[in-house]
Amino acid sequence: MVVPQNDLAYLGPAGTYTEEAAMIWNPNAALFPVKSIPDVARSVTSNESREGIVPIENSIEGGVTYTLDLLIHESDVSICGEVIVPIRQCLVGKSVINLDLIDTVISHPQSLAQCRKFLDETFPNGEMVASLSNAKAVQEMMASDDNTVAISSRRAAEIYGASILKSDIQDRLNNETRFVVLANRDANATGKDKTSLCFEFGDDGPGILSEALTEFASRDINLMKIESRPNKRSLGRYVFLVDIEGHRESESVKSAIDSLRKRVAMIKVFGSYPVFVSP
Amino acid sequence: MVVPQNDLAYLGPAGTYTEEAAMIWNPNAALFPVKSIPDVARSVTSNESREGIVPIENSIEGGVTYTLDLLIHESDVSICGEVIVPIRQCLVGKSVINLDLIDTVISHPQSLAQCRKFLDETFPNGEMVASLSNAKAVQEMMASDDNTVAISSRRAAEIYGASILKSDIQDRLNNETRFVVLANRDANATGKDKTSLCFEFGDDGPGILSEALTEFASRDINLMKIESRPNKRSLGRYVFLVDIEGHRESESVKSAIDSLRKRVAMIKVFGSYPVFVSP
Repeated sequence: MVVPQNDLAYLGPAGTYTEEAAMIWNPNAALFPVKSIPDVARSVTSNESREGIVPIENSIEGGVTYTLDLLIHESDVSICGEVIVPIRQCLVGKSVINLDLIDTVISHPQSLAQCRKFLDETFPNGEMVASLSNAKAVQEMMASDDNTVAISSRRAAEIYGASILKSDIQDRLNNETRFVVLANRDANATGKDKTSLCFEFGDDGPGILSEALTEFASRDINLMKIESRPNKRSLGRYVFLVDIEGHRESESVKSAIDSLRKRVAMIKVFGSYPVFVSP
Repeated sequence: MVVPQNDLAYLGPAGTYTEEAAMIWNPNAALFPVKSIPDVARSVTSNESREGIVPIENSIEGGVTYTLDLLIHESDVSICGEVIVPIRQCLVGKSVINLDLIDTVISHPQSLAQCRKFLDETFPNGEMVASLSNAKAVQEMMASDDNTVAISSRRAAEIYGASILKSDIQDRLNNETRFVVLANRDANATGKDKTSLCFEFGDDGPGILSEALTEFASRDINLMKIESRPNKRSLGRYVFLVDIEGHRESESVKSAIDSLRKRVAMIKVFGSYPVFVSP
């Protein structure tokens, strides 16, 4: 048996919110930054890392489509845990500078979107420049001229030696991201668990989705989340992702999933894991 | 009454797929490029433009969250039509160049994602650089060194004088985007229509969604699309967006919406409009 070299692969570089989630999940882990969400899964399935962590959902922006599509289409990795991190965006610069002098703001498009009202009011004529991560935005800002700033986490600013010009600039204060921990198996029941799965219908027709969902409702299983993703074969055909209350080894969840299986063309159970409790 | 100066506002600059959709919707329209999706809606509600057009859904990437959130939270504009455009991504450069010499690829993150397999195979060590639109990526590429290329539509390459190095580089051939046309009122019934709406529950509980959906199923109304978006107030609470078959003035759709209204805390009907037929 190959013993994984790393405890926990995460979407790097250092300073991303995923690194913060990783440190909450396992404060003593040997962390391993990788370049993309699929690379996190590959690091786990190849036994290079024991676990991996990726963002799956933000309270403002919604599902992280890269992660959802990886779970649906591209990987057989399981979900064994979740972590929720508050997102607090900061405006950061090379040094403390008068905001009137700023002409360019660099960040990931999702961070630019999360701070849109602040940016519209503060820099109505500023140029918005996209970057592939918040941490990368800080690195790019540090290599730019003095009139350029970035949006990032406090930690990314500290790591790359930037100054924080203003904190909590996101438009909505209840901005949180949910991360899932990936492993080669899911978690044992704790009594307060959820189960994530996806399914797709073979046919169309009025009522097919509402009938399928009664498999949960009729057993008093709460639907904690439902989301649809394109099936990628044709516009208007979907894969549904649901999170339900309970562990897949409990009698009611097991029976609901068995009955659902007869109604669908495809079903994939990503795993059961404890509901996150803030440390 | 203010007569709108422009026929059709769209998400610019010239050369975006939205411009292609605009030209399909109304080949004779005076087109008006604006800077953002909210600006398209504002141009309509302020009577600066008679109609506006924005992307709402891609067959690979899923919902365009900016547009969905605008319709849910920020605007009272109606949907009066839809257009579906096939997405055919091209690799474009300043001039014809040997692909081995390329070290940097610029594009919108969604386009980079749509061509990920091609990019991984062709430029395993290439640097990926984000841009805010495909058309902007071509402009940025034209101002960069010769080893930089961009991903864009054929039309954007032609507009900005770039050379097409390879076409149809998207990972999946059935890549299509659906656009919706915004106006201050929706469309009259044609006999082959759909209705778009969203709703949100006040409470939680097993069965609440499946019971709500039976309002459509019990009337033989086909659900053409269902999607969830965060309600933006707390993680795990959603607004559901559905497209159903039929016009909101037909008896069965009207009765389903009236009954649904009694089950939900919020409902918003975006409008009824003809199902798109390829020209």
